[in-house]
Amino acid sequence: MANTSVSSAHLENERTHAYGYAARDSSGIVSPFQFTRRANGDNDITIRILYCGICHGDVHFLRNEMHLPEGYIFYPMVAGHEIVGEVIKVGRNVQKFKAGDIAGVGPTFDSCRSCSHCNEGLEVYCPKTIMTYNAIDKDGSVTYGGYSDNTVVDEHFAVKIPNGMPLDGAAPLLCAGLTVYSPLKYYGLCEAGMHLGVVGLGGLGHVAVKFAKAMNMKVTVISTSPGKKKEALERHGADAFIVSNDQQQMQEARGTMDGIIDTVAGNHSVHPLVDLLKTGGKLVVVGAPMQEPQLPVVPLIMGRKTIAGSAGGGMKESQEMIDFAAKHNITADIELIPMDYVNTALERVSKNDVKYRFVIDVANTLHKDASAATS
Amino acid sequence: MANTSVSSAHLENERTHAYGYAARDSSGIVSPFQFTRRANGDNDITIRILYCGICHGDVHFLRNEMHLPEGYIFYPMVAGHEIVGEVIKVGRNVQKFKAGDIAGVGPTFDSCRSCSHCNEGLEVYCPKTIMTYNAIDKDGSVTYGGYSDNTVVDEHFAVKIPNGMPLDGAAPLLCAGLTVYSPLKYYGLCEAGMHLGVVGLGGLGHVAVKFAKAMNMKVTVISTSPGKKKEALERHGADAFIVSNDQQQMQEARGTMDGIIDTVAGNHSVHPLVDLLKTGGKLVVVGAPMQEPQLPVVPLIMGRKTIAGSAGGGMKESQEMIDFAAKHNITADIELIPMDYVNTALERVSKNDVKYRFVIDVANTLHKDASAATS
Repeated sequence: MANTSVSSAHLENERTHAYGYAARDSSGIVSPFQFTRRANGDNDITIRILYCGICHGDVHFLRNEMHLPEGYIFYPMVAGHEIVGEVIKVGRNVQKFKAGDIAGVGPTFDSCRSCSHCNEGLEVYCPKTIMTYNAIDKDGSVTYGGYSDNTVVDEHFAVKIPNGMPLDGAAPLLCAGLTVYSPLKYYGLCEAGMHLGVVGLGGLGHVAVKFAKAMNMKVTVISTSPGKKKEALERHGADAFIVSNDQQQMQEARGTMDGIIDTVAGNHSVHPLVDLLKTGGKLVVVGAPMQEPQLPVVPLIMGRKTIAGSAGGGMKESQEMIDFAAKHNITADIELIPMDYVNTALERVSKNDVKYRFVIDVANTLHKDASAATS
Repeated sequence: MANTSVSSAHLENERTHAYGYAARDSSGIVSPFQFTRRANGDNDITIRILYCGICHGDVHFLRNEMHLPEGYIFYPMVAGHEIVGEVIKVGRNVQKFKAGDIAGVGPTFDSCRSCSHCNEGLEVYCPKTIMTYNAIDKDGSVTYGGYSDNTVVDEHFAVKIPNGMPLDGAAPLLCAGLTVYSPLKYYGLCEAGMHLGVVGLGGLGHVAVKFAKAMNMKVTVISTSPGKKKEALERHGADAFIVSNDQQQMQEARGTMDGIIDTVAGNHSVHPLVDLLKTGGKLVVVGAPMQEPQLPVVPLIMGRKTIAGSAGGGMKESQEMIDFAAKHNITADIELIPMDYVNTALERVSKNDVKYRFVIDVANTLHKDASAATS
């Protein structure tokens, strides 16, 4: 027993000290928090976090809006899974990174590494996937996300950020970018000349437009907000814009699209979207409304159409996505904020009041108020 | 005017006289009916109908259960789009058939022949597709189906029935067979070793089981009727059987299927079916419930799953399907009936009281009561 105690104390000493902002309960209000992460193992890298994006999912988790029961929700919770930072430590088996490299971490923090999904590079679909925050790591500890000064992660679950990429705008690509890039590739909605509809011009939608244009597709943005037309066309390069509750515009576009990526999480019918598809067209949903829409069975049958989902992508595809983005000068359009603005930002995210993604300027703003830290 | 009259009379003389059973109104009750079809054109064949299957869709159309408005529903209506018969006349341009050949006609009677769908051999998805009955033909006349002694059709819209195939059991393949064969191929649910779920063991379902077994797939029948287990396994060769409202059986099969073909037109939830799919699995719906089910968005997203529809197949695929069936000794299991049993049969179809398809023994029974004919 004495030996065990000594050993535990020894391991505890090796753990990585970290500091960030955590929610203590489902109010979702975040405040300073001292904690530790695992020691940097042989396959791990330690990243000094420079930037972290705020995903809409962060609001859902911080406030437990999905009403997850005890054992599935862990406070204090440090959110954030759109992480970019500088590698400051590498384990002895690490191949991909050296100190000073820029690395990115998305929502997938670890997985079983041996199932068919992991073997195919689809770690996000592994039944034992471990999320970057609010999950139980293999050592039994809770995972903490990127609203903090560092993270320790197996190198397999970090991507290399290409040289010269703007790092703040790159951060949201790790989640938002992958969420739209992966289904475009997987469902074959990535061929030059195809016509893609993008529903919703938010954090996901605006990146989808950029990716699709880089793939030389024709892109039509479909939105409830007529006011977004100008930015869709002029700022993001979309070819057309449809107001989704304008019956005439919707009618004129019937049967013209090879695919649609629906990024909207608010409740809405998918019937009008399915009608926009050509025969054989595919509607890909990546946003999950609280209220399930009805399944338009007859239109699916009569048009051999498809409704499909996608949850993100694997690590191989994450690297491919970020390389593609760098090659085509694609980053997210962001509002860069200091750490002490996060609570306001979360509230604004919950109201979709952001163009198009908040990114926390972690390295430059987190430690300014370290004196206020509590643990 | 006199010339026109003569000409019309001349054409009328050339028209093909036919006799069958028609519904006069949405009671759906059929009774003897004398009518004419177009003259046999240069690209046409005239088929002496031997057998015609009764599709569940026949009940829907005869009774106008879809409440189609005037201009979309035509009485008297001669139903039937699972037609097999002997070629008795060929136009001078006909290449594929000679007198004495056995031909089959399914639900697609004609199409525009020039759109992208027609060029790809997907005539069923042509916007100008003409159905075998209750449609307006290119000459402005109404099309009449196979509850009759003959039909006149362009050879492109007839398939060759392979030698030696039992003709009565082959008839339902023209619609029911194609409806399940086409999506299995199109959606890639046709590889040896895959696990396919077949929902519903009726006219479509039992043929789906046979096709999938011929493709060397593992087949599980999913049904509300425990009593169908024995026939599913022993008669049709399914590998397993699940009672869909048995929670334990459904739980045990979670995440095990590559694909599911859902042939059930009765109202039902698709959630439990989506749960049976592996990651990346596909649920194909070919039956259209009156009440739309809910779209299980989160399961689709989390499992990168797909719900897709399919309406049948094109002519090229129809021939491929019937050749595949002949090669693997696949026919529908049928109850062969005389023409004067059709009203009873339609009533039984509406109650799903048939194993598994009624086929009318047209040539042997229709003209026995010709004296009762009305026009």
